[in-house]
This record gives sequence, C-alpha cells and structure tokens, in this order.
Amino acid sequence: MKQKITLKHIAKELNVSISTVSKALKNSEEISRDTKEKIQAFARLYNYKPNNIAISLKNKRTKNIGVVIPDIVHHFFTTVIRGIEQYANQKEYNVIVCLSDESFDKEVINMEMLANGSIDGFIMSLSSGTQRKNDYEHLQQVVEQGIPLVLFDRVTDQIACDKVVIDDQMGAYKAVKRLLSSGRKRVGLITTEDYLSVSYKRNLGYEKALAEFGVEYQDELVLKLPSMEVDEQRIADFLKNARPDAVLSVNEIFGITAMRLIRDQGRKVPNDISVIGFTDGLLSQYANPSLSAIRQHGEEMGREAAKMLIEKVEGLTDSESFVTKILEPTLIERDSTIN
Amino acid sequence: MKQKITLKHIAKELNVSISTVSKALKNSEEISRDTKEKIQAFARLYNYKPNNIAISLKNKRTKNIGVVIPDIVHHFFTTVIRGIEQYANQKEYNVIVCLSDESFDKEVINMEMLANGSIDGFIMSLSSGTQRKNDYEHLQQVVEQGIPLVLFDRVTDQIACDKVVIDDQMGAYKAVKRLLSSGRKRVGLITTEDYLSVSYKRNLGYEKALAEFGVEYQDELVLKLPSMEVDEQRIADFLKNARPDAVLSVNEIFGITAMRLIRDQGRKVPNDISVIGFTDGLLSQYANPSLSAIRQHGEEMGREAAKMLIEKVEGLTDSESFVTKILEPTLIERDSTIN
Repeated sequence: MKQKITLKHIAKELNVSISTVSKALKNSEEISRDTKEKIQAFARLYNYKPNNIAISLKNKRTKNIGVVIPDIVHHFFTTVIRGIEQYANQKEYNVIVCLSDESFDKEVINMEMLANGSIDGFIMSLSSGTQRKNDYEHLQQVVEQGIPLVLFDRVTDQIACDKVVIDDQMGAYKAVKRLLSSGRKRVGLITTEDYLSVSYKRNLGYEKALAEFGVEYQDELVLKLPSMEVDEQRIADFLKNARPDAVLSVNEIFGITAMRLIRDQGRKVPNDISVIGFTDGLLSQYANPSLSAIRQHGEEMGREAAKMLIEKVEGLTDSESFVTKILEPTLIERDSTIN
Repeated sequence: MKQKITLKHIAKELNVSISTVSKALKNSEEISRDTKEKIQAFARLYNYKPNNIAISLKNKRTKNIGVVIPDIVHHFFTTVIRGIEQYANQKEYNVIVCLSDESFDKEVINMEMLANGSIDGFIMSLSSGTQRKNDYEHLQQVVEQGIPLVLFDRVTDQIACDKVVIDDQMGAYKAVKRLLSSGRKRVGLITTEDYLSVSYKRNLGYEKALAEFGVEYQDELVLKLPSMEVDEQRIADFLKNARPDAVLSVNEIFGITAMRLIRDQGRKVPNDISVIGFTDGLLSQYANPSLSAIRQHGEEMGREAAKMLIEKVEGLTDSESFVTKILEPTLIERDSTIN
C-alpha cells in the first residue's frame, strides 16, 4: 500500500516551510509562480489529498468559533467561555463548546468533528490526557491546514499559534511571598503532577518564593495529586502529617476542601493555617471564611482569545506570526489569610 | 408574492396531522400510498420547500447531539451536561453545547446553526427570554421537520416532544413543609417572576405548603426578582423589611447570598433564620454553614434526556409518541436549617 503523503513530507522533500506548501496548494498569491508550480506538480505526482480535518477552510466562513475545553466543573473555564461569548457575539460570531473531559481521545474526536466545516477557528485549552501523552499531532494538522487556533491557559510550546495565559509562576510566587511575609514558616502546596503545564509553572513559583526567603524546599510540604480530581483522604493525610501553617492550592476546590478538613482536624483558618487558592471563582467568594485567591482573569482571557482568533480568521493579522499574551495574576485578599 | 407554504398549511388543507405530512414527504412506509400521493401532489402543486432548518435529517446521521442551555454559571446546568455526556459517550455520540445567554434571539440563532446538518437532535432548556416572549416557533419548526427534540427543566406545554423535569412544585412544597414543621412562622420565598416555568411551579409549591399548615399567604414575604441575576440590594431590603424566620430560594446563589446578608444584618443562620435553596450544587456543599438544599438531580436529568433523544434518533421509540419524565426532588438537610 502506498504511503499517505502529508504536507510535512512535501515540505521536507522540497525544502520549503509547511505553510508555504499549504499556501501553494491553495494557489495563494503570496507564493511565487515557480514555487507554486513545483509544489503543485509534486502533490499531484504523489496524489496528495488534504486531510479532511480541513474542509472548512476551503469554503465559506461559517461565523462559528469552536471551543474545546477540559471541563466545566471548574468555574475558571466557565468564566473564560463567558469572555469568549462576549467578544464573539459583539462581532456576530456564534460559539460552539465541546468538552474533552480531560481525555486525549475526546479532544481529538471533538476537533475532527468541528473542523469538518462547522467552524472558522478553534479556541482550546489542552486536556490533562493530552498533556500527559505529550502528543499534539491533532493540533499540528489543524495548524498546517491553515485553520486559526488560539490556545489558552493549558498550552504547549510544541505548537506555533496564538496563546493567552496568565503568568502562573508569578501567581504562585506572589501567594507564597505573601504567606511568608506574614510570618508563616511551613508553607504547603497542594498541586498536581508536573505534566499539567499550569501546575508545573505554579510549582516553580512556589520554589522561587521559598528560595528568595531562604526557606528550604521540603518534599513533605508538597502534595502532588495525579489529577484535578479531589482526593479528600490524601489531602487530609497531608494536612495531618506535614502540619503546614499555610497552604497554597492550584485550584479553588482543593483550597475549599483543605479549609473544611483543617476545621475537621480541630485547627482554625486563618489563625492556625492561612489558605490561598488559585482561580478565584464563586466558591472562593462565597466560602466561609472567604478564600484569599490568585485571580486568573478568566473573562479577560476569553475575550483576548476570541479577539486574537477573529482577527486571524478575518485576515486582520498576519497568518504566520504568532503572539503569546501573558496576563498578570492578581492576589485577592480575603478572610483565609492573616496579615 | 406567493405565500410560503408550510407543513402546517398542507396538514390543515388535507385534514391530516403534521407528522403524517412530514412522513409522506419523506416517502415513509408508515403512510398509505393513497395518502402519500395526495400529499406529495399537493406539495408539488404549491411548490413546498422544506425549511432549511432541517437539512440534517435528509442525509446521514452525524452522531452529534446539540445542547442549547441558558447559561453555565449556575452549577445545575453543568451537572446536566455532565449527565448528557456520560450517556452520549457510552453510545458514541458527541455533544455540542451552545449557550443562549437567556436570550430568545441567541437561542434561535444557535438552533438554526446546529440544525444545519451538524446534529441528529436537540436537548434544550428554554432561555428566560423565550419564556418571557412565549414564542416557540423555532422549536415548532424543528419538530415539524422531524428532528428529535428533548426539553429539560425549563419546558413548555406548547411543544409536543419528550421532556424531563423535576417536580418543582413538590420540591418547594417539601422545603416549606420542613420549615413550618420545625416551628418557623414567617417563611419567605426569594424567587423570580412567574414567566419562568420553574419559578412559577416552585411558587405554587410554596403556597400549597402554607395552605396545608393554615398559614396565610403574605405578599411581603415573597420577593420576585425580574431575572436570575443576583440583586443584593433588593434581597437585603427584603430580609430587613419582611423579617422572615426562614427562607426558601429558587437557586443556590440567591440562597448563599441571603445567608451572607443575614449575617451582615447581625442575625444567625440557622438559629434566627433557616435557609433552604434549590439546586444543591458545589456552592451549597461548600458554604459555611452548608446550605440545606432541594436536589434537582441534574446528572440524572441529563442522562435521561440523552437516553430519550438517542432512542428517538435511532428509531427505537415511536417518533410520534412523547413522554414527560418527572424526577422527584430530594431534600438534603445540612447546617442551614434547625430541627
């Protein structure tokens, strides 16, 4: 059986970039006649067929944006969707949301389905399954075929596209610095394993603040859970055994759960233990005591992502130059921290 | 200009049902040859064109389900989506979610977009805008063209289709009965205006329980807000002026907000005032004091809706008979109520 030829093969064989191949096959005026003829002849010779993931871009605009996110249980993603909706509606685009449920397979299936003519471009945050697998071929295909893609929050360096993130390292750094400045000595971290890009960066920020205050990093003060699922037993054991006097959590559900378990163990927030959690969703605001938080600016992130995407879709920005927009996180002080 | 002829016109003119017309035009074997010929001839004569909202059903299955919901800020809708996803994935269907943002126009736009060949059927909860306008023509079109539709939670009697709801009246009745049984005399209700189907039914349940206990209905104890938006000022004024000793709220955000405002006004939950809220989402569980709640069984509702839809899509249930499935709400007792 003849091997299926891809854009990548053609680019390598003729020593040009993938996007040059893509443009030449679309007969773009940006590419010289000679180069186009060469590429088109080569593609014909090897019977090149564009991947059906990309049918959409050949035809008309749909005025639809596809959004693929890991879940909607964490309030953060719902705020991003709200921001995307705000900007998109203003520009008269519809938003279609699909959930990957943190699964690589579901992420791939959703993208294939949406790319099949339903949408003009993608806004995505990677599933934990995808980050664990470290396989971005499905994104690469979309990009190669010229479908605009914006990644937010959980991103990867392996794909060249527009991105919007918050400075996760700075967020964790600010929080831990605040805890140490108020006299806390044993600052714990409740996080996930490092394959998750945001956790990795937050873990770095935690270490940076400790180093700056001359506090030694101790393994026992860091709880790395395998996923975003709340494991109450492990959090309870961690609090009991490591005896932290402050805790930073990488999401608000871990933070709120920790506050409840601390109370169950007969200690008080914030007097005995200060707690700060990432995200700053409704749970942080309505908890009692209310949870001090690193605000991730989800709505702004959503609006920025939609703006970047629509500008690419409408050809207002160069299709080959990409920007990573980094938003600065804000520390919101509430009742779960002492001064 | 010639008037556009619809399925409804043909049905009326020939004195048959709309679905008979629809089936005859699709050459269904369920319809007798005579009737089919008569209907097809009539349709040709008047140049009948099927509405383009229905292109999908003419062709192949997409294995996609379209879900249109009012918002994802209220945890209830996110749990329903989770239930839909669970069942749909098991049956190898994808789920596409669109938000109406409580707007009639957005609901119509989303449905038109999805019906245009992307999906096999719809699962929907009506926007407050649609319920206020009381206009269901866009749903009627979908139904007339034979696209399966399941409504959940916010439904209407004006559309014949499968439905899943909880018994909202019973939920409110159970809660108020519980509050009165524990000795409360002035049970307040924080709700929305009656155009919202679920609020209307919950208001009825409130009245029913009062009547059963021989307690007079007092206007001042019922706060009807214009929408699901939290209006802190009006809730605070209500609590201050009506001086309830118990409160039932139609969603958990109203309930949690009331608890905070009660505390701000120097009274205590549950000693001075008991609070019960509808929904039972994360906020209810994590609040302090935790909020006693009427559980709406969102996941189960989502699974049921997906099951009903997929059975219709796959022709496993009669396309012309419809079921309304009523789930029974459960009262979950937590720390915001006294015994």
